[in-house]
Amino acid sequence: MVIARVYVTPKKGVLDPQGKAVLQALQALGYGEVEEVRVGKFMELRLGELPEAEARSRLAEMCEKLLANPLIEDYRVEVERAR
Amino acid sequence: MVIARVYVTPKKGVLDPQGKAVLQALQALGYGEVEEVRVGKFMELRLGELPEAEARSRLAEMCEKLLANPLIEDYRVEVERAR
Repeated sequence: MVIARVYVTPKKGVLDPQGKAVLQALQALGYGEVEEVRVGKFMELRLGELPEAEARSRLAEMCEKLLANPLIEDYRVEVERAR
Repeated sequence: MVIARVYVTPKKGVLDPQGKAVLQALQALGYGEVEEVRVGKFMELRLGELPEAEARSRLAEMCEKLLANPLIEDYRVEVERAR
């Protein structure tokens, strides 16, 4: 069994209105030390048995096609083998 | 300067309709090896200079109050000191 963790974040320089909203809410709650917030997605996928190299290349495809928007988002994939 | 990474995930046993939707979309695209998907949030916060212990306790408060819904979500915080 393969466990994959996918992190999707807005690219540097791309506007992040959700992050801006969270920043303003935190400051309004009294957390003035917070200077910047970027909001992304975190996904955990469980995959059936397949070789790690193949899992990585299939996961990169999934990110390009569905999990991330490569025009405005970066992604990072971690793969772990579980029993 | 302190960089914090916050991971928010649906608690085990809590329904995750977004994860289910992504799972079905991946299977429809031909990725039949994917067995389960859980979708959470990933946030990166930049904080001003403050001691690490204080940063951690303030961040836990922010998660409880705003960044996560502790009834249905777990969260994990990583703190890193940057120059």
